[in-house]
Amino acid sequence: MKLEIFPIPGIPEVRPGMDLAREILLALNATHERVRDGDVFAVAQKIVSKAEGRLRYLPDILPGPAARELAAKHEKDPRVIELVLSESRRLVRAADGVIITETHHGLVCANAGVDRSNAGAPDTVVLLPADPDASAARLRADLMRRTGARVAVVITDTFGRAWREGQTNVAIGMSGLPAFVKYMGQRDPNDYELRVTEIALGDEIAGATELVMGKLSRQPVAIVRGLVYAPEEEGARTYVRPSGRDLFR
Amino acid sequence: MKLEIFPIPGIPEVRPGMDLAREILLALNATHERVRDGDVFAVAQKIVSKAEGRLRYLPDILPGPAARELAAKHEKDPRVIELVLSESRRLVRAADGVIITETHHGLVCANAGVDRSNAGAPDTVVLLPADPDASAARLRADLMRRTGARVAVVITDTFGRAWREGQTNVAIGMSGLPAFVKYMGQRDPNDYELRVTEIALGDEIAGATELVMGKLSRQPVAIVRGLVYAPEEEGARTYVRPSGRDLFR
Repeated sequence: MKLEIFPIPGIPEVRPGMDLAREILLALNATHERVRDGDVFAVAQKIVSKAEGRLRYLPDILPGPAARELAAKHEKDPRVIELVLSESRRLVRAADGVIITETHHGLVCANAGVDRSNAGAPDTVVLLPADPDASAARLRADLMRRTGARVAVVITDTFGRAWREGQTNVAIGMSGLPAFVKYMGQRDPNDYELRVTEIALGDEIAGATELVMGKLSRQPVAIVRGLVYAPEEEGARTYVRPSGRDLFR
Repeated sequence: MKLEIFPIPGIPEVRPGMDLAREILLALNATHERVRDGDVFAVAQKIVSKAEGRLRYLPDILPGPAARELAAKHEKDPRVIELVLSESRRLVRAADGVIITETHHGLVCANAGVDRSNAGAPDTVVLLPADPDASAARLRADLMRRTGARVAVVITDTFGRAWREGQTNVAIGMSGLPAFVKYMGQRDPNDYELRVTEIALGDEIAGATELVMGKLSRQPVAIVRGLVYAPEEEGARTYVRPSGRDLFR
Protein backbone atom coordinates (compact mmCIF):
# COMPACT_ATOMS: atom_id res chain seq x y z
CA MET A 1 0.00 0.00 0.00
CA LYS A 2 1.49 3.31 -1.08
CA LEU A 3 -0.14 6.51 0.11
CA GLU A 4 -0.04 9.92 -1.44
CA ILE A 5 -0.97 12.87 0.74
CA PHE A 6 -1.33 16.30 -0.79
CA PRO A 7 -3.05 19.54 0.10
CA ILE A 8 -5.56 21.35 -2.08
CA PRO A 9 -4.31 24.90 -2.54
CA GLY A 10 -6.46 27.86 -3.43
CA ILE A 11 -9.53 27.36 -1.23
CA PRO A 12 -10.90 30.84 -0.55
CA GLU A 13 -11.76 32.26 2.87
CA VAL A 14 -14.89 30.31 3.84
CA ARG A 15 -18.00 32.29 4.80
CA PRO A 16 -21.23 31.10 6.42
CA GLY A 17 -23.50 29.38 3.94
CA MET A 18 -20.78 28.57 1.45
CA ASP A 19 -21.03 25.22 -0.33
CA LEU A 20 -17.87 23.57 0.90
CA ALA A 21 -17.91 20.65 -1.55
CA ARG A 22 -18.18 23.09 -4.44
CA GLU A 23 -15.29 25.25 -3.19
CA ILE A 24 -13.07 22.22 -2.54
CA LEU A 25 -13.72 20.76 -5.99
CA LEU A 26 -13.25 24.10 -7.73
CA ALA A 27 -9.87 24.44 -6.02
CA LEU A 28 -8.97 20.85 -6.86
CA ASN A 29 -9.93 21.34 -10.51
CA ALA A 30 -7.50 24.25 -10.71
CA THR A 31 -4.72 21.74 -9.99
CA HIS A 32 -3.74 18.78 -12.16
CA GLU A 33 -5.38 16.34 -9.72
CA ARG A 34 -8.81 14.77 -10.16
CA VAL A 35 -10.90 12.93 -7.57
CA ARG A 36 -10.47 9.17 -7.54
CA ASP A 37 -12.46 6.39 -5.92
CA GLY A 38 -11.19 5.85 -2.39
CA ASP A 39 -9.80 9.35 -1.88
CA VAL A 40 -10.07 10.47 1.74
CA PHE A 41 -10.69 14.20 2.12
CA ALA A 42 -9.31 15.58 5.38
CA VAL A 43 -10.90 18.92 6.14
CA ALA A 44 -9.89 21.30 8.89
CA GLN A 45 -12.68 21.81 11.41
CA LYS A 46 -12.38 25.55 11.07
CA ILE A 47 -13.69 25.79 7.52
CA VAL A 48 -16.51 23.37 8.29
CA SER A 49 -17.52 25.50 11.26
CA LYS A 50 -17.30 28.68 9.22
CA ALA A 51 -19.45 27.27 6.42
CA GLU A 52 -21.99 26.25 9.05
CA GLY A 53 -22.00 29.70 10.63
CA ARG A 54 -20.51 28.49 13.91
CA LEU A 55 -18.94 31.90 14.49
CA ARG A 56 -19.47 34.26 17.38
CA TYR A 57 -18.72 37.97 17.45
CA LEU A 58 -17.15 38.69 20.83
CA PRO A 59 -18.71 42.14 21.40
CA ASP A 60 -22.10 40.36 21.31
CA ILE A 61 -21.23 38.01 24.18
CA LEU A 62 -22.28 38.88 27.74
CA PRO A 63 -20.26 36.76 30.16
CA GLY A 64 -22.11 35.43 33.20
CA PRO A 65 -20.70 35.23 36.73
CA ALA A 66 -19.14 31.74 36.32
CA ALA A 67 -17.32 32.79 33.15
CA ARG A 68 -16.14 36.04 34.72
CA GLU A 69 -14.77 34.23 37.75
CA LEU A 70 -12.96 31.53 35.74
CA ALA A 71 -11.62 34.11 33.29
CA ALA A 72 -10.28 36.32 36.07
CA LYS A 73 -8.57 33.38 37.74
CA HIS A 74 -6.82 32.25 34.54
CA GLU A 75 -6.34 35.63 32.88
CA LYS A 76 -8.62 34.88 29.94
CA ASP A 77 -11.16 36.93 28.00
CA PRO A 78 -14.44 36.40 29.94
CA ARG A 79 -16.45 36.50 26.69
CA VAL A 80 -14.40 33.60 25.30
CA ILE A 81 -14.82 31.70 28.57
CA GLU A 82 -18.58 32.26 28.43
CA LEU A 83 -18.57 30.50 25.06
CA VAL A 84 -16.25 27.76 26.34
CA LEU A 85 -18.65 27.03 29.19
CA SER A 86 -21.72 27.07 26.98
CA GLU A 87 -19.99 24.61 24.60
CA SER A 88 -19.07 22.28 27.50
CA ARG A 89 -20.86 19.83 29.69
CA ARG A 90 -18.04 19.61 32.20
CA LEU A 91 -14.87 21.36 33.27
CA VAL A 92 -12.12 18.71 33.32
CA ARG A 93 -9.09 20.76 34.46
CA ALA A 94 -8.25 24.41 34.82
CA ALA A 95 -4.65 25.13 35.73
CA ASP A 96 -1.54 26.90 34.48
CA GLY A 97 -3.65 29.05 32.16
CA VAL A 98 -5.10 25.99 30.44
CA ILE A 99 -8.83 25.27 30.54
CA ILE A 100 -9.73 21.74 29.50
CA THR A 101 -13.35 20.79 29.21
CA GLU A 102 -15.52 18.01 27.94
CA THR A 103 -17.63 19.38 25.10
CA HIS A 104 -21.26 18.45 24.51
CA HIS A 105 -19.89 15.94 21.96
CA GLY A 106 -17.76 14.34 24.70
CA LEU A 107 -14.49 15.63 23.23
CA VAL A 108 -11.89 16.49 25.87
CA CYS A 109 -9.86 19.45 24.66
CA ALA A 110 -8.60 22.91 25.52
CA ASN A 111 -11.23 25.67 25.53
CA ALA A 112 -13.94 23.35 24.22
CA GLY A 113 -12.41 23.91 20.79
CA VAL A 114 -13.41 27.59 20.85
CA ASP A 115 -10.67 29.25 18.86
CA ARG A 116 -9.85 32.78 17.87
CA SER A 117 -7.11 32.02 15.37
CA ASN A 118 -7.87 32.03 11.65
CA ALA A 119 -11.42 33.14 12.43
CA GLY A 120 -11.53 35.17 9.24
CA ALA A 121 -12.58 38.39 10.96
CA PRO A 122 -11.44 40.45 13.95
CA ASP A 123 -13.03 39.89 17.40
CA THR A 124 -14.53 36.65 16.14
CA VAL A 125 -14.19 33.12 17.45
CA VAL A 126 -14.98 29.80 15.83
CA LEU A 127 -16.90 27.06 17.65
CA LEU A 128 -16.71 23.36 16.82
CA PRO A 129 -19.44 22.05 14.50
CA ALA A 130 -22.56 21.07 16.47
CA ASP A 131 -22.44 17.53 15.07
CA PRO A 132 -19.12 16.89 13.28
CA ASP A 133 -20.07 13.38 12.12
CA ALA A 134 -23.19 14.79 10.48
CA SER A 135 -21.08 17.55 8.92
CA ALA A 136 -18.71 14.91 7.54
CA ALA A 137 -21.59 12.81 6.19
CA ARG A 138 -23.14 15.84 4.44
CA LEU A 139 -19.85 16.90 2.92
CA ARG A 140 -19.16 13.33 1.79
CA ALA A 141 -22.58 13.09 0.14
CA ASP A 142 -22.03 16.44 -1.61
CA LEU A 143 -18.58 15.41 -2.86
CA MET A 144 -19.88 12.06 -4.12
CA ARG A 145 -22.90 13.63 -5.81
CA ARG A 146 -20.73 16.18 -7.61
CA THR A 147 -17.98 13.76 -8.66
CA GLY A 148 -19.56 10.31 -8.89
CA ALA A 149 -16.55 8.97 -6.97
CA ARG A 150 -16.70 7.02 -3.72
CA VAL A 151 -14.80 9.11 -1.18
CA ALA A 152 -14.54 9.47 2.58
CA VAL A 153 -14.31 12.57 4.76
CA VAL A 154 -12.43 13.21 8.00
CA ILE A 155 -12.91 16.50 9.86
CA THR A 156 -9.75 17.32 11.79
CA ASP A 157 -8.82 19.54 14.68
CA THR A 158 -5.63 20.15 16.62
CA PHE A 159 -5.79 18.80 20.18
CA GLY A 160 -3.31 18.53 23.02
CA ARG A 161 -3.10 15.30 24.96
CA ALA A 162 -2.25 14.01 28.40
CA TRP A 163 1.35 13.00 29.21
CA ARG A 164 2.92 14.25 26.01
CA GLU A 165 3.99 17.73 24.95
CA GLY A 166 2.71 19.24 21.74
CA GLN A 167 -0.46 18.74 19.81
CA THR A 168 -1.55 16.50 16.96
CA ASN A 169 -4.51 16.58 14.62
CA VAL A 170 -7.29 14.17 15.49
CA ALA A 171 -10.58 13.24 13.83
CA ILE A 172 -13.59 14.97 15.36
CA GLY A 173 -15.93 13.91 12.56
CA MET A 174 -15.77 11.26 9.87
CA SER A 175 -17.86 9.54 7.26
CA GLY A 176 -17.30 6.67 4.87
CA LEU A 177 -14.55 4.78 6.63
CA PRO A 178 -14.24 2.61 9.72
CA ALA A 179 -13.13 4.24 12.96
CA PHE A 180 -10.79 1.39 13.87
CA VAL A 181 -8.50 -1.16 12.31
CA LYS A 182 -9.06 -4.05 14.68
CA TYR A 183 -6.50 -6.74 15.39
CA MET A 184 -8.20 -8.29 18.39
CA GLY A 185 -8.31 -12.07 18.17
CA GLN A 186 -5.91 -12.19 15.23
CA ARG A 187 -2.73 -14.19 15.72
CA ASP A 188 0.89 -13.29 15.13
CA PRO A 189 3.35 -15.68 13.40
CA ASN A 190 3.95 -17.43 16.75
CA ASP A 191 0.23 -17.97 17.22
CA TYR A 192 0.08 -15.39 20.01
CA GLU A 193 -3.33 -13.75 20.03
CA LEU A 194 -3.35 -9.98 19.74
CA ARG A 195 -5.48 -8.56 22.52
CA VAL A 196 -6.37 -4.94 22.63
CA THR A 197 -5.10 -3.36 19.46
CA GLU A 198 -7.65 -1.15 17.75
CA ILE A 199 -5.93 1.44 15.65
CA ALA A 200 -7.77 4.76 15.50
CA LEU A 201 -7.70 5.12 11.73
CA GLY A 202 -9.33 8.57 11.59
CA ASP A 203 -6.91 10.04 14.10
CA GLU A 204 -3.91 8.72 12.18
CA ILE A 205 -5.35 10.14 8.95
CA ALA A 206 -5.89 13.46 10.70
CA GLY A 207 -2.29 13.57 11.91
CA ALA A 208 -0.93 12.45 8.54
CA THR A 209 -2.76 15.18 6.66
CA GLU A 210 -1.71 17.86 9.15
CA LEU A 211 1.81 17.26 7.85
CA VAL A 212 0.83 18.89 4.54
CA MET A 213 -1.82 21.37 5.68
CA GLY A 214 0.06 23.84 7.84
CA LYS A 215 -1.77 26.42 9.89
CA LEU A 216 -0.88 29.65 8.16
CA SER A 217 -0.75 28.56 4.54
CA ARG A 218 -4.53 28.44 3.97
CA GLN A 219 -4.52 24.81 2.96
CA PRO A 220 -7.35 23.48 5.09
CA VAL A 221 -8.05 20.43 2.92
CA ALA A 222 -5.81 17.52 1.99
CA ILE A 223 -6.38 14.25 0.20
CA VAL A 224 -5.08 10.83 1.25
CA ARG A 225 -4.92 8.60 -1.80
CA GLY A 226 -4.16 4.90 -1.86
CA LEU A 227 -5.60 3.89 1.50
CA VAL A 228 -7.49 0.60 1.44
CA TYR A 229 -10.59 0.64 3.64
CA ALA A 230 -14.18 -0.48 3.82
CA PRO A 231 -16.82 2.22 3.25
CA GLU A 232 -18.27 2.11 6.75
CA GLU A 233 -20.23 4.69 8.65
CA GLU A 234 -19.05 4.60 12.24
CA GLY A 235 -18.30 8.24 12.84
CA ALA A 236 -15.66 9.85 15.02
CA ARG A 237 -18.06 9.82 17.95
CA THR A 238 -16.80 6.22 18.32
CA TYR A 239 -13.53 7.68 19.60
CA VAL A 240 -15.21 9.39 22.52
CA ARG A 241 -14.44 7.27 25.56
CA PRO A 242 -17.37 7.43 27.98
CA SER A 243 -16.14 9.13 31.15
CA GLY A 244 -17.13 6.07 33.19
CA ARG A 245 -14.61 4.03 31.22
CA ASP A 246 -11.92 6.68 31.39
CA LEU A 247 -9.16 6.44 33.99
CA PHE A 248 -8.05 10.02 33.38
CA ARG A 249 -11.01 12.30 33.78
CA MET B 1 4.16 19.65 -0.33
CA LYS B 2 3.18 16.21 -1.53
CA LEU B 3 4.04 13.21 0.62
CA GLU B 4 4.53 9.63 -0.38
CA ILE B 5 4.34 7.00 2.33
CA PHE B 6 5.22 3.41 1.55
CA PRO B 7 6.30 0.34 3.49
CA ILE B 8 9.45 -1.64 2.85
CA PRO B 9 8.43 -5.26 2.32
CA GLY B 10 10.68 -8.24 2.83
CA ILE B 11 12.49 -7.38 6.06
CA PRO B 12 13.34 -10.73 7.70
CA GLU B 13 12.58 -11.68 11.29
CA VAL B 14 15.03 -9.54 13.27
CA ARG B 15 17.36 -11.30 15.73
CA PRO B 16 19.61 -9.83 18.42
CA GLY B 17 22.79 -8.35 16.98
CA MET B 18 21.43 -7.95 13.48
CA ASP B 19 22.53 -4.84 11.58
CA LEU B 20 19.18 -3.13 11.11
CA ALA B 21 20.36 -0.54 8.59
CA ARG B 22 21.79 -3.30 6.42
CA GLU B 23 18.60 -5.36 6.54
CA ILE B 24 16.40 -2.35 5.79
CA LEU B 25 18.52 -1.31 2.82
CA LEU B 26 18.75 -4.86 1.45
CA ALA B 27 14.96 -5.07 1.57
CA LEU B 28 14.61 -1.62 -0.01
CA ASN B 29 17.05 -2.53 -2.80
CA ALA B 30 14.87 -5.51 -3.67
CA THR B 31 12.12 -3.01 -4.54
CA HIS B 32 12.27 -0.38 -7.25
CA GLU B 33 12.73 2.38 -4.67
CA ARG B 34 16.05 4.00 -3.77
CA VAL B 35 16.86 6.19 -0.79
CA ARG B 36 16.57 9.92 -1.39
CA ASP B 37 17.75 12.93 0.58
CA GLY B 38 15.10 13.87 3.09
CA ASP B 39 13.52 10.41 3.39
CA VAL B 40 12.17 9.76 6.87
CA PHE B 41 12.45 6.13 7.96
CA ALA B 42 9.76 5.12 10.43
CA VAL B 43 10.77 1.94 12.20
CA ALA B 44 8.60 -0.12 14.51
CA GLN B 45 10.01 -0.25 18.03
CA LYS B 46 9.78 -4.01 18.06
CA ILE B 47 12.49 -4.64 15.49
CA VAL B 48 14.77 -2.06 17.10
CA SER B 49 14.33 -3.79 20.45
CA LYS B 50 14.92 -7.20 18.93
CA ALA B 51 18.11 -6.09 17.17
CA GLU B 52 19.30 -4.67 20.50
CA GLY B 53 18.50 -7.91 22.33
CA ARG B 54 15.78 -6.34 24.46
CA LEU B 55 14.01 -9.70 24.73
CA ARG B 56 13.18 -11.69 27.83
CA TYR B 57 12.36 -15.37 28.02
CA LEU B 58 9.46 -15.71 30.44
CA PRO B 59 10.52 -19.03 32.07
CA ASP B 60 13.67 -17.17 33.23
CA ILE B 61 11.69 -14.51 35.12
CA LEU B 62 11.07 -14.90 38.85
CA PRO B 63 8.27 -12.56 39.88
CA GLY B 64 8.65 -10.81 43.23
CA PRO B 65 5.84 -10.20 45.73
CA ALA B 66 4.73 -6.84 44.26
CA ALA B 67 4.45 -8.33 40.78
CA ARG B 68 2.60 -11.38 42.07
CA GLU B 69 0.09 -9.25 43.94
CA LEU B 70 -0.58 -6.89 41.03
CA ALA B 71 -0.80 -9.78 38.57
CA ALA B 72 -3.29 -11.67 40.73
CA LYS B 73 -5.46 -8.59 41.14
CA HIS B 74 -5.59 -7.91 37.39
CA GLU B 75 -5.41 -11.50 36.10
CA LYS B 76 -2.05 -11.04 34.38
CA ASP B 77 1.01 -13.24 34.02
CA PRO B 78 3.14 -12.39 37.10
CA ARG B 79 6.35 -12.83 35.10
CA VAL B 80 5.20 -10.19 32.62
CA ILE B 81 4.21 -7.88 35.47
CA GLU B 82 7.64 -8.36 37.06
CA LEU B 83 9.15 -7.03 33.82
CA VAL B 84 6.56 -4.22 33.62
CA LEU B 85 7.52 -3.07 37.13
CA SER B 86 11.25 -3.32 36.48
CA GLU B 87 10.79 -1.20 33.32
CA SER B 88 8.78 1.43 35.22
CA ARG B 89 9.51 4.19 37.63
CA ARG B 90 5.90 4.63 38.65
CA LEU B 91 2.53 2.95 38.43
CA VAL B 92 0.10 5.52 36.97
CA ARG B 93 -3.17 3.54 36.93
CA ALA B 94 -4.22 -0.07 37.32
CA ALA B 95 -7.86 -0.75 36.66
CA ASP B 96 -10.17 -2.75 34.41
CA GLY B 97 -7.33 -5.12 33.52
CA VAL B 98 -5.18 -2.26 32.23
CA ILE B 99 -1.86 -1.41 33.86
CA ILE B 100 -0.50 1.97 32.89
CA THR B 101 2.93 2.98 34.10
CA GLU B 102 5.53 5.64 33.56
CA THR B 103 8.61 3.99 32.10
CA HIS B 104 12.16 4.94 33.02
CA HIS B 105 12.12 7.07 29.84
CA GLY B 106 9.05 8.94 31.18
CA LEU B 107 6.69 7.38 28.62
CA VAL B 108 3.19 6.78 29.94
CA CYS B 109 1.79 3.63 28.35
CA ALA B 110 0.18 0.28 29.00
CA ASN B 111 2.46 -2.39 30.48
CA ALA B 112 5.55 -0.16 30.20
CA GLY B 113 5.65 -1.18 26.54
CA VAL B 114 6.40 -4.80 27.48
CA ASP B 115 4.75 -6.78 24.71
CA ARG B 116 4.34 -10.42 23.93
CA SER B 117 2.97 -10.04 20.38
CA ASN B 118 5.30 -10.49 17.41
CA ALA B 119 8.13 -11.39 19.78
CA GLY B 120 9.53 -13.79 17.22
CA ALA B 121 9.64 -16.76 19.60
CA PRO B 122 7.25 -18.43 22.04
CA ASP B 123 7.20 -17.42 25.74
CA THR B 124 9.19 -14.34 24.87
CA VAL B 125 8.41 -10.67 25.47
CA VAL B 126 9.93 -7.57 23.96
CA LEU B 127 10.93 -4.56 26.07
CA LEU B 128 11.25 -1.00 24.80
CA PRO B 129 14.75 0.09 23.75
CA ALA B 130 16.73 1.38 26.73
CA ASP B 131 17.34 4.73 25.00
CA PRO B 132 15.14 5.04 21.90
CA ASP B 133 16.61 8.41 20.84
CA ALA B 134 20.09 6.89 20.89
CA SER B 135 18.78 3.91 18.92
CA ALA B 136 17.32 6.29 16.34
CA ALA B 137 20.55 8.28 16.13
CA ARG B 138 22.62 5.12 15.61
CA LEU B 139 20.28 3.79 12.95
CA ARG B 140 20.25 7.16 11.22
CA ALA B 141 24.05 7.30 11.20
CA ASP B 142 24.22 3.75 9.79
CA LEU B 143 21.68 4.53 7.06
CA MET B 144 23.50 7.73 6.10
CA ARG B 145 26.90 6.05 6.07
CA ARG B 146 25.64 3.25 3.86
CA THR B 147 23.68 5.44 1.42
CA GLY B 148 25.32 8.87 1.47
CA ALA B 149 21.82 10.36 1.71
CA ARG B 150 20.60 12.70 4.44
CA VAL B 151 17.74 10.88 6.14
CA ALA B 152 15.86 10.97 9.44
CA VAL B 153 14.63 8.16 11.67
CA VAL B 154 11.50 7.89 13.83
CA ILE B 155 11.04 4.86 16.10
CA THR B 156 7.33 4.20 16.55
CA ASP B 157 5.18 2.31 19.00
CA THR B 158 1.44 1.85 19.43
CA PHE B 159 0.08 3.64 22.51
CA GLY B 160 -3.35 4.18 23.94
CA ARG B 161 -4.30 7.61 25.18
CA ALA B 162 -6.52 9.29 27.73
CA TRP B 163 -10.07 10.29 26.78
CA ARG B 164 -10.15 8.61 23.38
CA GLU B 165 -10.75 5.00 22.40
CA GLY B 166 -8.26 3.15 20.28
CA GLN B 167 -4.54 3.51 19.86
CA THR B 168 -2.27 5.40 17.52
CA ASN B 169 1.40 5.12 16.72
CA VAL B 170 3.60 7.70 18.40
CA ALA B 171 7.30 8.51 18.23
CA ILE B 172 9.32 7.07 21.11
CA GLY B 173 12.67 7.84 19.50
CA MET B 174 13.75 10.13 16.70
CA SER B 175 16.82 11.58 15.07
CA GLY B 176 17.43 14.09 12.33
CA LEU B 177 14.25 16.12 12.48
CA PRO B 178 12.70 18.66 14.84
CA ALA B 179 10.25 17.41 17.46
CA PHE B 180 7.83 20.28 16.92
CA VAL B 181 6.51 22.55 14.21
CA LYS B 182 6.06 25.72 16.22
CA TYR B 183 3.52 28.39 15.41
CA MET B 184 3.79 30.35 18.63
CA GLY B 185 4.09 34.06 18.03
CA GLN B 186 3.20 33.77 14.35
CA ARG B 187 0.18 35.72 13.16
CA ASP B 188 -2.84 34.66 11.18
CA PRO B 189 -4.23 36.76 8.27
CA ASN B 190 -6.20 38.89 10.78
CA ASP B 191 -3.02 39.58 12.76
CA TYR B 192 -4.19 37.37 15.62
CA GLU B 193 -1.17 35.84 17.32
CA LEU B 194 -1.14 32.04 17.53
CA ARG B 195 -0.45 31.05 21.11
CA VAL B 196 0.21 27.48 22.02
CA THR B 197 0.40 25.51 18.84
CA GLU B 198 3.38 23.18 18.71
CA ILE B 199 2.66 20.30 16.40
CA ALA B 200 4.30 17.04 17.47
CA LEU B 201 5.87 16.22 14.12
CA GLY B 202 7.30 12.84 15.12
CA ASP B 203 3.99 11.61 16.50
CA GLU B 204 2.17 12.61 13.32
CA ILE B 205 4.80 10.84 11.22
CA ALA B 206 4.44 7.76 13.44
CA GLY B 207 0.68 7.71 12.97
CA ALA B 208 0.94 8.37 9.24
CA THR B 209 3.32 5.48 8.67
CA GLU B 210 1.23 3.10 10.77
CA LEU B 211 -1.37 3.44 8.02
CA VAL B 212 0.89 1.44 5.68
CA MET B 213 2.72 -0.80 8.15
CA GLY B 214 0.03 -3.05 9.56
CA LYS B 215 0.72 -5.31 12.51
CA LEU B 216 0.59 -8.76 10.98
CA SER B 217 2.07 -8.13 7.55
CA ARG B 218 5.72 -7.95 8.67
CA GLN B 219 6.24 -4.49 7.32
CA PRO B 220 7.88 -2.81 10.29
CA VAL B 221 9.55 -0.03 8.28
CA ALA B 222 8.03 2.68 6.12
CA ILE B 223 9.40 5.72 4.37
CA VAL B 224 7.88 9.20 4.32
CA ARG B 225 9.10 11.04 1.26
CA GLY B 226 8.55 14.68 0.43
CA LEU B 227 8.43 16.13 3.92
CA VAL B 228 10.26 19.44 4.29
CA TYR B 229 12.10 19.75 7.60
CA ALA B 230 15.29 20.99 9.17
CA PRO B 231 17.83 18.31 10.14
CA GLU B 232 17.62 18.89 13.88
CA GLU B 233 18.50 16.60 16.74
CA GLU B 234 15.89 17.13 19.43
CA GLY B 235 14.83 13.55 20.08
CA ALA B 236 11.47 12.15 21.08
CA ARG B 237 12.36 12.61 24.74
CA THR B 238 11.19 16.20 24.08
CA TYR B 239 7.62 14.81 23.97
CA VAL B 240 7.83 13.53 27.53
CA ARG B 241 5.89 15.97 29.66
CA PRO B 242 7.46 16.20 33.11
CA SER B 243 4.93 14.86 35.62
CA GLY B 244 5.01 18.18 37.48
CA ARG B 245 3.67 19.90 34.37
CA ASP B 246 1.09 17.21 33.68
CA LEU B 247 -2.50 17.70 34.79
CA PHE B 248 -3.36 14.04 34.22
CA ARG B 249 -0.91 11.87 36.12
